[in-house]
Amino acid sequence: MTEELKLMGANRRDQLLLWLKESKSPLTGGELAKKANVSRQVIVQDISLLKAKNVPIIATSQGYVYMDAAAQQHQQAERIIACLHGPERTEEELQLIVDEGVTVKDVKIEHPVYGDLTAAIQVGTRKEVSHFIKKINSTNAAYLSQLTDGVHLHTLTAPDEHRIDQACQALEEAGILIKD
Amino acid sequence: MTEELKLMGANRRDQLLLWLKESKSPLTGGELAKKANVSRQVIVQDISLLKAKNVPIIATSQGYVYMDAAAQQHQQAERIIACLHGPERTEEELQLIVDEGVTVKDVKIEHPVYGDLTAAIQVGTRKEVSHFIKKINSTNAAYLSQLTDGVHLHTLTAPDEHRIDQACQALEEAGILIKD
Repeated sequence: MTEELKLMGANRRDQLLLWLKESKSPLTGGELAKKANVSRQVIVQDISLLKAKNVPIIATSQGYVYMDAAAQQHQQAERIIACLHGPERTEEELQLIVDEGVTVKDVKIEHPVYGDLTAAIQVGTRKEVSHFIKKINSTNAAYLSQLTDGVHLHTLTAPDEHRIDQACQALEEAGILIKD
Repeated sequence: MTEELKLMGANRRDQLLLWLKESKSPLTGGELAKKANVSRQVIVQDISLLKAKNVPIIATSQGYVYMDAAAQQHQQAERIIACLHGPERTEEELQLIVDEGVTVKDVKIEHPVYGDLTAAIQVGTRKEVSHFIKKINSTNAAYLSQLTDGVHLHTLTAPDEHRIDQACQALEEAGILIKD
């Protein structure tokens, strides 16, 4: 740690919040650690403290995002869908969805020990999809859906219901959507 | 599969919902599979379809639970807390909380690839805590908090704020609560 000024406690958390509010794209823990001149672990604890105060920060697969009311307002339509596919079709599935201008807010599976396990992946563009897939492949992380033989839920968000209808139709045609 | 009547599609889902609504305690996938005379995987898909219709079923660490309005009403107070401890203190932490009559609704950590990962463990008694810990040990599942060097969030629910205050005080005295 160089001798540059190290931001301390509450001031640091205020500054983190400011950076996140001003940023147009997600900020990773590493980027925030460098900016605040502290370790990545200190950032994880700081973000946890802010979340414990109900500050609307989410850790997405791309980094931390401040979800203010306006950002949430933009995504008025929301729908939960049930999907079934092998891990090799994850990228295809996500692309079918984002190509309709729809965001995949999360993926939910049933963990045999923990019960419902929800991951806030928050991918809405082809770039974010490929970044997410690359991260999975580079870290050898398992696809969560492998825990339940491919069955999983997604919460989809979009500016309107029509886009979600289109995404569901595309998934159905691809044999990915589980229908009643 | 014996030749007993196998419940089919939508009827089966209606029946699953009825069993869950009537049950005073969580029902496991295995129990529902036996009752409906189908495989466990069929039950996972059925529950996913019901969840996709916003039916308030959650998969907890103890099994499926139907969270009707009354059940949720009973738990009016809710608070997110930030905690830090090693995996060996998980049981102690959960006991400190449930001993105050407080329920641990979930555990949330930051997965390096998936972002926020939330597990609906839903433990509220010493019996449920020991069942959860036994399951982790018997399946060698890692504690989620091990992914973030012990830092994690819990959402606590209880009939009133006072019980949550007491639980937080106990956690603080044990050096588990991360404070501002």
